[in-house]
Amino acid sequence: MYTYQGRDMTDIAEPATYPITEVNRVKRVHERGRYDKATVHAILDAALVCHIAYVIDGQPYCTPTGFWREGEHLYWHGSSASRMLKAQREGIPVCLTVTHVDALVMARSGFHHSINYRAVMAYGTAHAITDPDEKLRLMDNFIDRIYPGRSKLIRQPTPQEFKATMMMGMEIETASGKIRDKHVADEEEDYEAVPAWSALYPITQVLGEPSECARQLPGLAFPEGMSDFTPGAKFDEVMTKAYRRTFG
Amino acid sequence: MYTYQGRDMTDIAEPATYPITEVNRVKRVHERGRYDKATVHAILDAALVCHIAYVIDGQPYCTPTGFWREGEHLYWHGSSASRMLKAQREGIPVCLTVTHVDALVMARSGFHHSINYRAVMAYGTAHAITDPDEKLRLMDNFIDRIYPGRSKLIRQPTPQEFKATMMMGMEIETASGKIRDKHVADEEEDYEAVPAWSALYPITQVLGEPSECARQLPGLAFPEGMSDFTPGAKFDEVMTKAYRRTFG
Repeated sequence: MYTYQGRDMTDIAEPATYPITEVNRVKRVHERGRYDKATVHAILDAALVCHIAYVIDGQPYCTPTGFWREGEHLYWHGSSASRMLKAQREGIPVCLTVTHVDALVMARSGFHHSINYRAVMAYGTAHAITDPDEKLRLMDNFIDRIYPGRSKLIRQPTPQEFKATMMMGMEIETASGKIRDKHVADEEEDYEAVPAWSALYPITQVLGEPSECARQLPGLAFPEGMSDFTPGAKFDEVMTKAYRRTFG
Repeated sequence: MYTYQGRDMTDIAEPATYPITEVNRVKRVHERGRYDKATVHAILDAALVCHIAYVIDGQPYCTPTGFWREGEHLYWHGSSASRMLKAQREGIPVCLTVTHVDALVMARSGFHHSINYRAVMAYGTAHAITDPDEKLRLMDNFIDRIYPGRSKLIRQPTPQEFKATMMMGMEIETASGKIRDKHVADEEEDYEAVPAWSALYPITQVLGEPSECARQLPGLAFPEGMSDFTPGAKFDEVMTKAYRRTFG
């Protein structure tokens, strides 16, 4: 269930999978494709950074940026001066992609070398959030999505900061997930015939020891909502837990 | 210097920075922009996975994939059946983006929350590599770029595998790097006025312990070229070292 401030935001009539169209159908190694919303959402909610593809005057751009999900909407933000957000303000098609790299897979032929990963490509039309109350709510949610409860601890935006920040959103019109989660898988005859040391190397994104601001006020407690921010923790798990603390 | 098989591939008349145009100019926080090739190349060569934006019938796509650089060319590969590569075969504009996430930066206002990162957006026209010798050379280089020397240890592609694999390339027509590498930077008055615990959290992608293939042949030595693949090593550093071992 997706809740926000105690309210159930789930449309119970909503289908649990994304429609499969020519746009989102996973063609290459199609057995890796996932269209169920639970899987797609889990991949999205474990990430802070996505890459967004969009087109200006026929030129494609691929911009990395922080983002988060609320129900079937994705949000990101940036400067009112940015090329990306100026272009997207009026409503343009975008593809928002999230990728977690999980392992290197070394096989006995080049063809079977691989990467374990979890990825989502989400398609929709980007538009600017112009309602001031909604924009302010989203600004708080973006902070809280990363650092649960933090929006209540920090200074609120000044009018200039509010104006300089553009908040963007899109409804997920369709999406696909793609997952590889397998060990070495070689051609049967290669296991014996090819004397190449073969292995899977896990890759994880981890949080380090925090470096406190040199001008920290004395006596401040470590923020309550951040108890999952332990040095060495896997970042995708920290982001998933932060997400659930904030959005239920 | 960029060498390949002992040969200096650097055009010494080549300028050391990318031309700044309307396409690649860093507009948002422009002091973070980098156009010198040394910086752009270093960010690219520290990565295995990129995201590529391209357009089919007006719909932008953002596809994650493995890639590598040779001089001013970038290469990636995939299935001949893939939507991306079918579209790119004839030559279409793409934007290839690499992002390393280095830290979370928690400030005393939402406006000054940030992420430390190193990113490159490279622009060019993707085309298929059709010459069989060049394609085979690139297949070997892709393996060696990750695992130095491994192309000599594994089985070579069968005719079917060779046909099923499409190799793509682009010349970097222009590119920009963008780097944030700073601690918390708040408005002067907020340091004292806002009692919010503030810190920088490093984020690193690290290699885990290898899990050997269950059908490993007995007595195989750990590959010589992979001595930098130590558990706990930072993956961007492992990829940079592998790159230099293979390309000098």
